[in-house]
Amino acid sequence: MTLETISTNTAFGGVQGVYKHRSASTGTDMTFAVYVPPHEQGTKLPVVWYLSGLTCTHANVTDKGEYRRACAELGLIFVAPDTSPRGEDVPDDAESAYDFGLGAGFYVDATEEPFAQHYRMRTYIEEELPELIAAHFPVDKSRQGIMGHSMGGHGALTISLRNPGQFKSTSAFAPIVSPLNCPWGHKALGGYLGPDQSAWVEYDACALIASGARLPDLLIDQGEADNFLTEQLKTHLLTEACETADQTATIRMQLGYDHSYYFISTFMADHLGWHAERLKA
Amino acid sequence: MTLETISTNTAFGGVQGVYKHRSASTGTDMTFAVYVPPHEQGTKLPVVWYLSGLTCTHANVTDKGEYRRACAELGLIFVAPDTSPRGEDVPDDAESAYDFGLGAGFYVDATEEPFAQHYRMRTYIEEELPELIAAHFPVDKSRQGIMGHSMGGHGALTISLRNPGQFKSTSAFAPIVSPLNCPWGHKALGGYLGPDQSAWVEYDACALIASGARLPDLLIDQGEADNFLTEQLKTHLLTEACETADQTATIRMQLGYDHSYYFISTFMADHLGWHAERLKA
Repeated sequence: MTLETISTNTAFGGVQGVYKHRSASTGTDMTFAVYVPPHEQGTKLPVVWYLSGLTCTHANVTDKGEYRRACAELGLIFVAPDTSPRGEDVPDDAESAYDFGLGAGFYVDATEEPFAQHYRMRTYIEEELPELIAAHFPVDKSRQGIMGHSMGGHGALTISLRNPGQFKSTSAFAPIVSPLNCPWGHKALGGYLGPDQSAWVEYDACALIASGARLPDLLIDQGEADNFLTEQLKTHLLTEACETADQTATIRMQLGYDHSYYFISTFMADHLGWHAERLKA
Repeated sequence: MTLETISTNTAFGGVQGVYKHRSASTGTDMTFAVYVPPHEQGTKLPVVWYLSGLTCTHANVTDKGEYRRACAELGLIFVAPDTSPRGEDVPDDAESAYDFGLGAGFYVDATEEPFAQHYRMRTYIEEELPELIAAHFPVDKSRQGIMGHSMGGHGALTISLRNPGQFKSTSAFAPIVSPLNCPWGHKALGGYLGPDQSAWVEYDACALIASGARLPDLLIDQGEADNFLTEQLKTHLLTEACETADQTATIRMQLGYDHSYYFISTFMADHLGWHAERLKA
């Protein structure tokens, strides 16, 4: 588990790093970012995973997420992985569209060809990267939270729901709540998993909750001016699923906010504070 | 003075906008960003000007500067202009280097050909843009502060020193303090103003202070791990100029910090708080 350091920069008293490694899950090089806040030598810190949305790499939230001040104040490590495998031999969407293939791994283990070899972001995020992070950074593995944006919100919710107890806190900005019920989901899960929708269920937050999966708590912020709200994100489906299943959740509609990092950065410190309360309890 | 809105996004309860207009000073279209914090309708707000460094446009600080939370809390308008004229007929550096020409206007009015026609960033920032901003945004013109980074720190210092009383507060991150005494300065001022260094003096913060210009106060942060410190920035020249001239200044060396936006964003809220104290006094 060797790690290549691409860059490190001092920020808010801690270190923002960008790293690269050879992933056994995806069979490609993978790049990710880790912020380690100022801390006493030898202490282990809680960690928050941030999964990014369509078209993003680790760099979008690292540049625009405004998480470092809060992480420094709260003593949180912040990990930002990439959103898909990348490389010359990694197949892309046939039309190079933004919503499938490169930059759009949807946090699944693909079973369909030609994607099954490299598109294994579920195993990468659930198993390989946590081991790597724990080996190289001062992480307390018993105190992990997960959050994400849009496709990454879908990733955070489904990964947390499928792995009870692994994450003490789960939140999302403008998540895709039900791939079974939106065009992005149909294209991605159809492409990676094939037409049998019974295979999609474990990648659908609403379906997972309906089938009994539970989280201790859940925080969602969704912009009311988000262009993707009506056709793709459909927050109301999650609200209904949580109500039906008696899943505790705080789902907030934010007036005037869109789908961008202007929205995410506005509520980032609030989410991190919410995670810290649960990770430090 | 018409203004074209390129984008507006809600952020931290206010509005981050990007705008374009036809500049009479530069003879080109110019793009800039303005953040207006949440405020009561009809009130006029203090404004802080942020001048960017080499290679930047308005977008760098808008993406990475992390100023919006502080501006929202403090009630400050934040204006981020571009760093040079741009367009097909705007001459660039002969070798397209990063330190002259496009992205490197140095906040001067050029007198040398072929730059004299378009490279008029001094007039643009000192005269034209303030009028435009005041006409379109709820700015209290009696309460203006100015700050900048690197080349933009040079811009902020020299513009404030040359226009006593116009800015109640002046600060900089890693400024070029003396173009007369560094390679960037020699290339830029030589290229824009010609070889007679007597014409450079009004674009040199240390020389302006030595010749009697004064500010009510001054705040500087400089990273000790900044790659440009020794050869280009030479903070000690400003320290010496201020001591010699009895100019009040707080000049802080920050251990571990480099020249990047990781450095700027770390100290941005602190600078904005410092400006707000002086703008609201």
